[in-house]
Formats: sequence, C-alpha cells, structure tokens
Amino acid sequence: MKFTVIMKSLNWETFSWKKEALFGTIRDCKLAYKTFGKLNEAKDNAILFPHMYSGTHKAMEIYIGEGMALDPSKYFIILPNQLGNGLSSSPHNTPFPFGRGAFPKVRISDDVRAQHKLVTEKFGINTLQLVVGWSMGAQQTYEWAVRYPEMVKRAAPIGGTAKNTPHDFLFTETLIEAITSDPAFQDGWYEDHQQVHRGLRRHSRIWAVMGLCTEFYKQEQWSRLGFSSLDDFLVGYWDNWFLPMDPNNLLCMAWKWQRGDVSRNTGGDLKAALERIQAKVYVMPFEEDMFFPVRDCKAEQEMIPNSELRVIPSLWGHFTMMGFFEEDKNYIDAQLKNLLSTPV
Amino acid sequence: MKFTVIMKSLNWETFSWKKEALFGTIRDCKLAYKTFGKLNEAKDNAILFPHMYSGTHKAMEIYIGEGMALDPSKYFIILPNQLGNGLSSSPHNTPFPFGRGAFPKVRISDDVRAQHKLVTEKFGINTLQLVVGWSMGAQQTYEWAVRYPEMVKRAAPIGGTAKNTPHDFLFTETLIEAITSDPAFQDGWYEDHQQVHRGLRRHSRIWAVMGLCTEFYKQEQWSRLGFSSLDDFLVGYWDNWFLPMDPNNLLCMAWKWQRGDVSRNTGGDLKAALERIQAKVYVMPFEEDMFFPVRDCKAEQEMIPNSELRVIPSLWGHFTMMGFFEEDKNYIDAQLKNLLSTPV
Repeated sequence: MKFTVIMKSLNWETFSWKKEALFGTIRDCKLAYKTFGKLNEAKDNAILFPHMYSGTHKAMEIYIGEGMALDPSKYFIILPNQLGNGLSSSPHNTPFPFGRGAFPKVRISDDVRAQHKLVTEKFGINTLQLVVGWSMGAQQTYEWAVRYPEMVKRAAPIGGTAKNTPHDFLFTETLIEAITSDPAFQDGWYEDHQQVHRGLRRHSRIWAVMGLCTEFYKQEQWSRLGFSSLDDFLVGYWDNWFLPMDPNNLLCMAWKWQRGDVSRNTGGDLKAALERIQAKVYVMPFEEDMFFPVRDCKAEQEMIPNSELRVIPSLWGHFTMMGFFEEDKNYIDAQLKNLLSTPV
Repeated sequence: MKFTVIMKSLNWETFSWKKEALFGTIRDCKLAYKTFGKLNEAKDNAILFPHMYSGTHKAMEIYIGEGMALDPSKYFIILPNQLGNGLSSSPHNTPFPFGRGAFPKVRISDDVRAQHKLVTEKFGINTLQLVVGWSMGAQQTYEWAVRYPEMVKRAAPIGGTAKNTPHDFLFTETLIEAITSDPAFQDGWYEDHQQVHRGLRRHSRIWAVMGLCTEFYKQEQWSRLGFSSLDDFLVGYWDNWFLPMDPNNLLCMAWKWQRGDVSRNTGGDLKAALERIQAKVYVMPFEEDMFFPVRDCKAEQEMIPNSELRVIPSLWGHFTMMGFFEEDKNYIDAQLKNLLSTPV
C-alpha cells in the first residue's frame, strides 16, 4: 500500500441537501491508493477504479488479473481509496479535535478532485483509458466523465447513478439513523467503534434487506457460500462485513453518497452535465438492484451521447459486484473487455 | 363501533420463527368489528374484509359504498379489527400485568379463528361471498380460504402472500428493531407511547423507503396530495400515520405478519395448502411493491386451482390500497366488481 500526502489544508466547499453552504478543511489530507501494472512511457495506459460505500480498494482487486479486462500486464490500474473510507483521510484517523464527530462533510466531487491531483500531478497522466466503479464508485465515475470529459476515454458506471434519487437518499438516511440513534454513538465522540455495535448491527440488517433482492433469499442463495442458515448468513456475511467498520467513517461516506450529483457542474441541469461526457460509456445497472434500479440508470443513459445500457443479471442485486458467484464476475469482466476493445 | 367478547381465556398456540413452542392466553379476548349493510335471511350475502398492518378497519371503509363492489345495499360487510391493532385485544388495552410488554404472541391463524367464531357463532353465517384484504389482510384472506375452504366463495388477497418470504421477514425485522432499540421503549414497559417517538419515527422512515417505490419519489407524486416538499411528506404523511400508534401494538402485528404462513395447516406443504382452496381467487399484487413483489404473488397464484393474477399498476407501490389516487381506488373496485359478478 502506498500513501501520499497530495493536498495540504485544502478547503472543501460543499453544500448540504438543504442547500446551506458548508465549508470545512481536511488538514494534511491524505489519499491512499494502490496501483497494479506499469505506466507506459506515453502515459496513456491508465485505468482508474474508485470503490463503493464501505470497505476499501481491496474488495475490487478481484477484477484485476492477467487475462482479465483489467490486465496489469497491459494497463496501469489505479485504485484510489475514498476520503472517509479509513485509509484515506477519514474521521477515525484525523487527530483530535478535527476528526471523529468533527470531520468535515465531503462530496463525491472532492474525491474526484483529489484523484485528479493524484493522476495528473503525481503520475503526469492526461488520459484515462477507462474509469470504472461500482455504486459510490459509479458516482465517482460519472463525476470524472462530466468534470474532466477530455481525459476520460471510456467509462463504466456499474450499479449507480449520476444524480442520486430521492428514494436512494431516504434509504441512506435509514442507514445513518440506524447508527446515530445508538446512544453509544455519542454524536460521534465514542471512544471505541465497537461500542457502537448495536447501531452498526441495525445498519447491517437494513443492508441485508436492500443490498440483495427478494428472490436471493427465497432461493436461499446464501447456501452457495456455505452459510448454514439465514441467521448464519446475517451474522457471518452482513454483520461480519459492517461491524468492524468505524461508524463516523461510514457516516462520512453515507452523507457523500446521498448527495452525489453531477449536475452540480452545470447549475442543476442534469442533461447538460451528461451531454458533456465525451467517453464511450457502458451504463451497467444490476437487474435486481433495489435502490439503483435499472429504470433510474436507463433514464440517465439515454442522456449520454455515446452510451449503451448493459444490464447485469444476478440475484445478488446491488451486491453482485462483490463477485461471490464466478458467473457474475465473468459477466462483468466480459463487458469491461468489450468496452476496452472498443476504439475511441 | 360494536365490541363483543367472543372468547374468554382462549389458549393461543403459536410457534416462533425458530420453531420453539410458545403458548399464551389473551384474557377476556375481544374482537372489535364494524358492519355495513344487512345480513339477509338466507345469511348468504356476507363479505369479510380484514385489514392491514397498523391502523384499523377504518382505513378500508373507502372501499364501501353504494354503487361500489362492496355495496352495503346488497352485501353484509364485516370489517374485523386485528388482534393487537388497538381496538381488538391489544398490548395497550390489556390490563396489567398481562398487557404491554407481556402480551402474548399472536398469529394470523389466531385472528382467523377468532373471526370464524364471530362469523359463525355471532351471525350464524356459513358462506362468505368474498374475503378480501390488503397486506396482512391478504394474509388473513389466504388463511381463511385454506382453513375454511368450504365457507369462502371468492377471495381477493391484495398485495400480500400466503406464506411470508424470508426477505419480507427481514424487512419487518428492521421495523421491529427501529422501535425496540429506542431506550425509551424499555422492553415494552414505557409509560406513554409518545415517549417512544424516536423509535416510531425511525420505523416510519423505513416505511417511507419500502412502502412506496423509487419512481414515486422521483416524480414527486407526493405533490398530488398537497405536500410542499419531500420533508413535508415524510412528516405530514409517514410520521403522522405511525407516530400516534402504540409501539407494543405495532410489534404485536409485526411479529404476526412475519410468520403468516398457510402451510402451517398442511405440515409445511404450501402447495397442498393452496390446493385446498375452493374459492375463486383473484391474486392482486401491486406492480411496484418492494416487499410483496409480483413475482412472489404469482408463484403462489400458480398453485391455486381456480385463480387469476390481476396486477395493480400504481406508483403508490405497497400503499396503493390507501386509495389516495382516485384511479387506483377505481381500478381495485373494478376488479372486485368483476370477481363478485363471477358465478361460483
């Protein structure tokens, strides 16, 4: 893992849902990232692969390998970690009194601006062959394609939207409330994140409802992963994924997720924002996604000039990208291969 | 409103999700109900219309009126109130020490057995022209048609299933946790239900996510009801509906809802249970329902001998039955008219 300080005392300008101005400063802002492969001399073989809510770049490494679309023998693949994810500057790793409950609000566009500095200033890259990301990674992908259209040759937003929907906002709000309502949360000033385990568990269980789909549970697809019962799956998968995480970090990402919106680049005009995209785009929703449904993704795809809708079929719903089923991983990989082989 | 004591010290046999035996007694058990129209001499013009989670029979009265399918000039229409709904025997109206946190677990089949006593012993009715119900009302409808097949001529389960699904169980679990996690809940021994307003509000906000559909919010359909903003809708509709309710009452119904399953009549064999149905059945899911999806309802419909699938299209999702839009109410009414005019 490489860490680098790429911004010092940068001012982050953000606006909350209710439009009041918010300003904050992340002191000694750090962006953690990992790379695979080698940047060629022309510096034109780079791929950027930002990640989703919760977790780190690590979960996405399953899509990188020789013979796969993201082939490190061919491409220089950069996996940035989200601000707030626990590796990059985050509530839990920012020293008192600026961290934890006092960490500033961060936006998708803040991440993308930080990644832009990394890509251009650290690596001297001006062209990205592909920006690909899932969920909040899709939000970052869209932001890249709209904000720096001339840099992005291809884009694959997977299971996410360019402008978050009100329903998705409300869903995320229930996740936030699940955590903040735990008395142990103490406005973010808990001593140890494990004290907030009750709130984290509620948060995990809401994910269990919305993260997959009705049919996954009906068919007991969890048994394919070796879980012995539904309870075993709830504890062994969902709780096990979310409970080790820091509540403030999750809340930082959740706030950011709620407000993902490329139309902030064009005064609120989503169509104008999406028409700025020069990349060849595969819009890839999951057929069974409960909160980034195909319908919402399709409506955006239709506004993007050089784009195609490629629906991913899997009972893993929004969590298909975790690639637990080999066929899902292969399906997504095949789409990315196809996109990367499209001349632009 | 008529109240009647129809069962005294009845033993309720129930089994929890995890199959351990549970027994409880509702002392001086009361079933509250309201009737419309007159029972004819042959006692063969009765319709039973049980209700959904939360609320009372009152919310369903909009489907009763001259010229409508449920025409009180033609039919004797009985609207029973669920055990636990606040009018029938419920945690909040059962005297100490048997009420509140100590109220026994109740099943859909307990409601149906109580209603059966009302219908047969109080009114001497042996034939029901129609049993119709929405959501938990659909669960009761299915239970009626399976348990007393010879009595039910027609059945219209609307937006509900005969056997609850695991996903639906998990969704309901998040509603339960939203309430019980409020420290003011005190294991059900709060002094005043309004003390639990934080938990009730979280419960209401999860409903806001699952009770409608993504497109409802995207199109800001709430504006058709006169709400000025999304926030106004959350407070003015969802909070306003759920916050006056008693938490223990809601939890009583939620536990019941989770375990609705007609296959308890046939040793776990759902197909055998549904094949017992003699009624002409319209299975009526809502096209946009997020937790009783068409897919689940269709799978059951295909096991019912004399049945049709009639999907109800509306952006109100699971809450379409509240009939806020005149076209939805008319659509449902037309289906019921059609069903009632079908000779059986």
